[in-house]
Amino acid sequence: MKIAVLAGDGIGPEVTAQAVKALRAISANNGPQFEMAEAPIGDAAFNQHGDPLPPSTAEMAAKADAILFGAAGTYESDLRPAEQRGGHGLLRLRKQLDLYANFRPVFAFPELLGASSLKREAIEGVDLVVLRELTSDIYFGTPRGRGVENGQRHAWNTMRYTEAEVARVMRAGFEAARKRRRQLCSVDKANVLETSQLWREVAIEVARDYPDVELRHEYVDAVSMHLIRRPRDFDVIVTGNIFGDILSDAAAMLTGSIGMLPSASLNGEGVGLFEPVHGSAPDIAGKDLANPLASILSAALLLRHSLKLEAEAALMEKAVRQVLAEGYRTGDIMEEGATRLGTEAMGDAVAQAI
Amino acid sequence: MKIAVLAGDGIGPEVTAQAVKALRAISANNGPQFEMAEAPIGDAAFNQHGDPLPPSTAEMAAKADAILFGAAGTYESDLRPAEQRGGHGLLRLRKQLDLYANFRPVFAFPELLGASSLKREAIEGVDLVVLRELTSDIYFGTPRGRGVENGQRHAWNTMRYTEAEVARVMRAGFEAARKRRRQLCSVDKANVLETSQLWREVAIEVARDYPDVELRHEYVDAVSMHLIRRPRDFDVIVTGNIFGDILSDAAAMLTGSIGMLPSASLNGEGVGLFEPVHGSAPDIAGKDLANPLASILSAALLLRHSLKLEAEAALMEKAVRQVLAEGYRTGDIMEEGATRLGTEAMGDAVAQAI
Ligand SMILES: CC(C)[C@H](C(=O)O)[C@@H](O)C(=O)O
Ligand SMILES: CC(C)[C@H](C(=O)O)[C@@H](O)C(=O)O
Repeated sequence: MKIAVLAGDGIGPEVTAQAVKALRAISANNGPQFEMAEAPIGDAAFNQHGDPLPPSTAEMAAKADAILFGAAGTYESDLRPAEQRGGHGLLRLRKQLDLYANFRPVFAFPELLGASSLKREAIEGVDLVVLRELTSDIYFGTPRGRGVENGQRHAWNTMRYTEAEVARVMRAGFEAARKRRRQLCSVDKANVLETSQLWREVAIEVARDYPDVELRHEYVDAVSMHLIRRPRDFDVIVTGNIFGDILSDAAAMLTGSIGMLPSASLNGEGVGLFEPVHGSAPDIAGKDLANPLASILSAALLLRHSLKLEAEAALMEKAVRQVLAEGYRTGDIMEEGATRLGTEAMGDAVAQAI
Repeated sequence: MKIAVLAGDGIGPEVTAQAVKALRAISANNGPQFEMAEAPIGDAAFNQHGDPLPPSTAEMAAKADAILFGAAGTYESDLRPAEQRGGHGLLRLRKQLDLYANFRPVFAFPELLGASSLKREAIEGVDLVVLRELTSDIYFGTPRGRGVENGQRHAWNTMRYTEAEVARVMRAGFEAARKRRRQLCSVDKANVLETSQLWREVAIEVARDYPDVELRHEYVDAVSMHLIRRPRDFDVIVTGNIFGDILSDAAAMLTGSIGMLPSASLNGEGVGLFEPVHGSAPDIAGKDLANPLASILSAALLLRHSLKLEAEAALMEKAVRQVLAEGYRTGDIMEEGATRLGTEAMGDAVAQAI
C-alpha cells in the first residue's frame, strides 16, 4: 500500500512527521506495511523547484493509494501569480485527482470542552460534518484574471457550477447523512446568486432519492450565525467550495479543538487526500508547539477510507483518546492540571499508545 | 427633514414601527420634526405591485434625507428570477444610491453578556466594526446567469472589483479606525482569488496615507475562526460584499445580541440607509416576539449620520440602555430575573424613556 507523504509548508512537516510515526507504529508487531514516500509541495516546492506542484510530486500522488498531506502556502506568496503560490499546488492536486468531496467532521471531544471559547452547554454533544465541494466554484471558474481599463486596475473571478458537480457532492452528503442522524442542511445564497439557485434546485432533486433524510436550506450568512448559536442543530452540512472554506473553519473552531480535526478529500473511487483542517500556521512553525493530533487523526481516516483498514484506523483513534485521557495536551488545548507536551513528544505518546 | 420608511418583509414592519415611535418621541416636546413617509419594498412590494422596488419607492428614497429600512425578502421568493425576489429590491436600492460603505458595529452590551453562546471572558469588552463593501463584488458583477449545455444546466456569477471601488471603502475604513483604536484588518482570499489580490494591493496603497493606523491582512477563512476565538483582537474589519455578508453576521452573533445591532450604509455624501443587522425572520413575524432595539438603534444612527442630530441620537441610545438597565428584555435576550416584553411593549418602554 503506497502512501504519498506531502508535508508542505509551515507546521506541515512537523505534524506530518508525527502521523508517519503513528503509521509506523501500526506496522510494527506484524501490522500492515506501508510504502511511504515523501515529495515536495507548496511554497517549499516552489522555492526549491520553481513549481508548487512539481511534476514528480503530481505523478507520485497519482500513483499512490492515498495521500497524507500537511499544509500548503504561507503569506509570503499571496501576491504572486497563481502558478507561483504554495496554496495553488494543493488546488491543482485536488483538481487533478478530482477530489470533489471534502469531509470535515467536527466533534466535541468531551476532554476538550473547556478549551473552547463557547460555553460548555452550547457545544456539548456537537457532532457534525461539513461536506465541502472541492473542485469547482470560484476556486476554479473561468474567466479569471486582472487588467487595466482607463488607467484603472480591475480583477475578476467566476463562480460556476454545473448540475453534475452539485449532484455528485449532494449525493455524497445524503449517503453520509444516512449513516448518521439523517439531517442534511444545504447552504447557499439563493436570494442573490444564480449559482446558488441552481445549487438549491439540484439539492431538491437529489433529495427525492433519499426520502428518509430530512433536507433543509439555509443561507450562508444565516449558517454562520446559527453555527455559533446552536451548533447541535447540525448533522451534515453540504456547501460549495468557497462557502465551505469559510464555514468549515468556523465550525472547526467551535469545539475549541481545531488542532484536533482531520479531513478527508475523496473522489468517489477510494482515492483520497487526508489533511488536518488547520493550515500552515507559519508563526509557530519549527517551534515544536503545533498539535499533531489532527494530522494523526487524518492518518486514521486514510487507513479507514482509502486503505479499508478499519481495525487499524480505530486503533489509532483509540490511542489519541487514551493520550488525552491521560492528561497530555499541546499548548492550543492546554488546561489547568494537564501535562503540556511539544509536537514531538505528543507524537511519541500516541505511537507508544498504539 | 425627510425620512423614507421602508419596512419591508417579515418582522420588518413591526420592528420599524417601534423605531418610528422612538423618532416621534424625539419630536415631542419641541424636538426636531421629521417628515416620515412609508413605501413598499421587498416581497411585500412584489406581491402588491409586481416589483420588489416599485418606481415610486425608488423615487421617494432618492429624495429623502435618510432611509429607515426594515428587512427584505423571505424564503418564498428564493427560486424566482432576480427581478422578482424581495432581497433584490434592497440590492437595487443600495446600488442606486451608491451606498458603498456598510458599517456594522458589534458591541458587547455589558447587560447582555450572559445571552451569548460564548463565554463571558471571551466577549467582555468586544467593540469592533465590520465595514462591508456594499455595491460591487459577486452581488453585482456581470456576466451572471444560467444556461444549458449538452443537456446539463449550469450557472455562473462574477466576482469583480475595480481599484476605485476598493480604495473608497478602504479609505472609509481607515477614517473610522482613526476615530477608534487605529487598527484595521483587511480581509481577503488572496491566496486563491485575483480579485482578492487586487483588494490587498489597494489596501496597502491606501494605508500609506494613514501611517498612524496599523494595517494587517487576514484570509476570510482565518477570520471566521479568529472572530470566534479572540474577537477582542479586532477594531475595524474591512471586507468585500460577500465575505462581509458572512462575517458580519457571525460577528453580530458573538455578543449574543443580534437583535440589538444596527447598521448604517453610507454613500460618502451624507445619504444613508439604516437597518437592523438581523433579517426578516419570517418564522417569528407578526407574533410580537421580535426585538425592536436594533431598529431603534438604527434610527439613532440615522439621526447621527444623515441628519447630524448628535444630541438626539445620544438621547435615543441612552433610552435603550436605560430600558435594559431596568431589566426589560425581549425573548431573544431573555435572562433569569429579567422582565419579558413583546415588540410593542419594548417600543413603548423606549419611547417612554425618551
Ligand atoms: C490553502 C488554501 C488554498 C486552502 C483553501 O482555501 O481551500 C485552505 O484554506 C483549505 O481550506 O484547505
Ligand atoms: C437580503 C440580502 C440580499 C442581504 C444581503 O445579502 O446583502 C442581507 O443578507 C444583508 O446582509 O443585508
